[in-house]
Amino acid sequence: MVEDTTAPQIEEYLRASDQAFATWSQTPAAERADVLDVVADALDAAGETLIPVAMRETNLPEARLTGELKRTTFQLRLFGQVLREGTWYDARIDHADADWPMGAPRPDLRRTHIPLGPILVFSASNFPFAFSVAGGDTASALAGGNSVIVKAHSGHLELSALTGEVINKALAEAGAPEGLFHVVFGTEAGKSALLDSRVKGSGFTGSIPGGRALFDLANSRPEPIPFYGELGSNNPVFVTQQAAKLRGESIASEFIGSFTMGAGQFCTKPGTLFIPRNSGMREALATAALPQGAKLLNSRIQSGYVEVLEALSGHAATEVLVQGSDPLADPPSPTLLVTSIEDLLADPNALQAECFGPTAMVVEYDDEAQLVAAASTFEGQLTATLQAEESDDVAQLVRVVASKAGRVLWNQWPTGVSVTYAQQHGGPYPATTAAGSTSVGTAAIARFVRPVAFQNFPQHLLPAELQDANPLSNPRLVDGRPVS
Amino acid sequence: MVEDTTAPQIEEYLRASDQAFATWSQTPAAERADVLDVVADALDAAGETLIPVAMRETNLPEARLTGELKRTTFQLRLFGQVLREGTWYDARIDHADADWPMGAPRPDLRRTHIPLGPILVFSASNFPFAFSVAGGDTASALAGGNSVIVKAHSGHLELSALTGEVINKALAEAGAPEGLFHVVFGTEAGKSALLDSRVKGSGFTGSIPGGRALFDLANSRPEPIPFYGELGSNNPVFVTQQAAKLRGESIASEFIGSFTMGAGQFCTKPGTLFIPRNSGMREALATAALPQGAKLLNSRIQSGYVEVLEALSGHAATEVLVQGSDPLADPPSPTLLVTSIEDLLADPNALQAECFGPTAMVVEYDDEAQLVAAASTFEGQLTATLQAEESDDVAQLVRVVASKAGRVLWNQWPTGVSVTYAQQHGGPYPATTAAGSTSVGTAAIARFVRPVAFQNFPQHLLPAELQDANPLSNPRLVDGRPVS
Repeated sequence: MVEDTTAPQIEEYLRASDQAFATWSQTPAAERADVLDVVADALDAAGETLIPVAMRETNLPEARLTGELKRTTFQLRLFGQVLREGTWYDARIDHADADWPMGAPRPDLRRTHIPLGPILVFSASNFPFAFSVAGGDTASALAGGNSVIVKAHSGHLELSALTGEVINKALAEAGAPEGLFHVVFGTEAGKSALLDSRVKGSGFTGSIPGGRALFDLANSRPEPIPFYGELGSNNPVFVTQQAAKLRGESIASEFIGSFTMGAGQFCTKPGTLFIPRNSGMREALATAALPQGAKLLNSRIQSGYVEVLEALSGHAATEVLVQGSDPLADPPSPTLLVTSIEDLLADPNALQAECFGPTAMVVEYDDEAQLVAAASTFEGQLTATLQAEESDDVAQLVRVVASKAGRVLWNQWPTGVSVTYAQQHGGPYPATTAAGSTSVGTAAIARFVRPVAFQNFPQHLLPAELQDANPLSNPRLVDGRPVS
Repeated sequence: MVEDTTAPQIEEYLRASDQAFATWSQTPAAERADVLDVVADALDAAGETLIPVAMRETNLPEARLTGELKRTTFQLRLFGQVLREGTWYDARIDHADADWPMGAPRPDLRRTHIPLGPILVFSASNFPFAFSVAGGDTASALAGGNSVIVKAHSGHLELSALTGEVINKALAEAGAPEGLFHVVFGTEAGKSALLDSRVKGSGFTGSIPGGRALFDLANSRPEPIPFYGELGSNNPVFVTQQAAKLRGESIASEFIGSFTMGAGQFCTKPGTLFIPRNSGMREALATAALPQGAKLLNSRIQSGYVEVLEALSGHAATEVLVQGSDPLADPPSPTLLVTSIEDLLADPNALQAECFGPTAMVVEYDDEAQLVAAASTFEGQLTATLQAEESDDVAQLVRVVASKAGRVLWNQWPTGVSVTYAQQHGGPYPATTAAGSTSVGTAAIARFVRPVAFQNFPQHLLPAELQDANPLSNPRLVDGRPVS
């Protein structure tokens, strides 16, 4: 039993977090990288303690959690590598130029990025490691030089507390400032921290209503702060006529694998599959073997899932294409619904609702031009996927889905978000509250830093990444030209 | 007399803007650059028409407006150069890697930036060219591939209409899509456009209350949009003991030149000057020749100025250090007030209020340690300035002011914001509503684009900047390493 954090405790944590920030923000990036490595090692070493607790609290299987922990510690080390390599500074140096054609001399200007302050992270239910206490928001905020307070998700409180202990022990061993990292518990604790003037930014992964409420709260402050919320996504998949003809059966089986992976509890779960009518794909899907049902993360997710599934399957325009024996039971067996593109276009809001769990919607179309029309009706998405052939004329469809989504896939599946330099896990609202950012990949560090320019400064008072001698050997934009 | 834009006109503009976006966003960046050049040439050519109207509407002198127009067209061309050069894409290519140490193979991922959609620009009163219809927000939004609707400032309506005509004629000549650019008039026109779902982002330069109201409106939408507001700033200047001793008189006279420049109507006007007590600087300031008063931009600014000046000079802790003969008249002669650092720390909110016009506050201190304490009390700032010597021990002061401001200056003055690659014109709230962005300099384009990643895409469907052949020769991050 983990108790809610009390108001006096939160006050003490905020004070400590603010104080730790003063030291951590001035710690050289390479030293911060070393600290992240120590934390990653400690988490790897604690796997045998943490994973059984995660299994018990989240119903997720051991293999999945083992892989997720590996991904989580890889992510911490990758941000360390980012810190050592230095592109994240986006360091820019303009030398003074008396003949600058603006009409006035250009002063010596040098721009880098500095951390924001204490960052409040609202962790997710569905990735108890990778998007939770030691997850991407924490890793990128710490990397950027911020202190971090994580509001634990109610779905895995004990794991959150244990993970926090592992992190804090490692931070202490690595010589990080005391108070750099805290975990708090309870809805009120999260809200009161979000409203505290010492908190300078926030990350969130969760539902649309929950995320929107916190976004509104962050913006209601006398001093509003950036709120990076990842909320909801349907992740539509568009199958062209040719692709259906050439590989309809394998697309069908891969789709089933993707939407039922992790019991459908991924923000990138493909929720809608557009297939050509009379292509044989409907039959392939209807007769495919669905996997067994698996217990969902917790009882709140289970009841929410049943509610949305009942609404979707009760909609006049849908029918069940295939489902297991116990679609509404606990655990629920998977369900595939089917509708027509005409019906989808007639009621997009209802039929494009995200269903968090092992349900997806198949949409039959006649003409590929309809796909462009349907894609246009979607709200902002984390991902959109084309299953198509290279000779297909899909340039317009690609443009439309790119205008809706943060990541567009070609003949792959959106579940499984790789942590890389070029990853983009974001998208227009309601996929996120900040489409200009990503919560996965090395660019995620940009959320928790801001630019500052130094004008006419003496070398010894400049941050190292802006000094002429370039002691960190980091890539820079010098007088408008990249120098690496 | 320029009439308010009617609701049916706004509807028509939004429809046209949305449609033009579809074409413009797909226009190659180099072609957009050519269009920006044509617009710049047309504005340069129209100077003889525009400048007299600007003089009449804003009370600004010809030389200033001529320089400002030059800066404005330079800025348009600089964004053209940015488009041709390509760093703005922040293009990243991760090749597929079966051995990616995350624990799962890395897919081929390629990330670039795409425009947002129609952008609504609220223009400023004090720069009728550089932060108005053809200003930095318009230039950066158009450069990024967005259509633009400018809400004209009430202070220069006729100039706004004329500038809009020049731009639209040039756009048509250059072959830009019809409807790419509009100017609208009236508060209601601006608000209704901000709430329209077709508008996907907004820029603003103006007051704290006005900007906050629009920021709140943008966030109240069912689909919130990024609102880049530049609001208010005091721009404190800290003079060390040594600097006062060595160059007190010249600092005093430069300060007077800076805070009275443009009749004190710059967002970067230095509003507070910290000087050592008994250093002779007080006397130098008190006996300095103040410039003549100059008419402020308009009657609303004049009455607002008088109100704030009366509040500041009526404050029990302030006295007049020096002022011209008609401090409250129209035009107002400049005023320098003085207070002590103890009084400032006792009532920072009142004594750090921005006074838009030719007034500034001198603050006397005894000990340089007090400067750190005083700097800590400031809200977010566009700039902060040190007048100091290289042997001064000011590292801590630099850290504190950098944590408060977007730009930190050393022995120069904040007025006069150069348009460059490394410029940062922004800062924590209330200096701006988005401290992670800049409204001046080439990085300003980042406000109106967002990242999108393409996974496993065939070459011919990728944007040019992400293709293996790199047909645009733009710099990229390839497998985590900069390649230029």
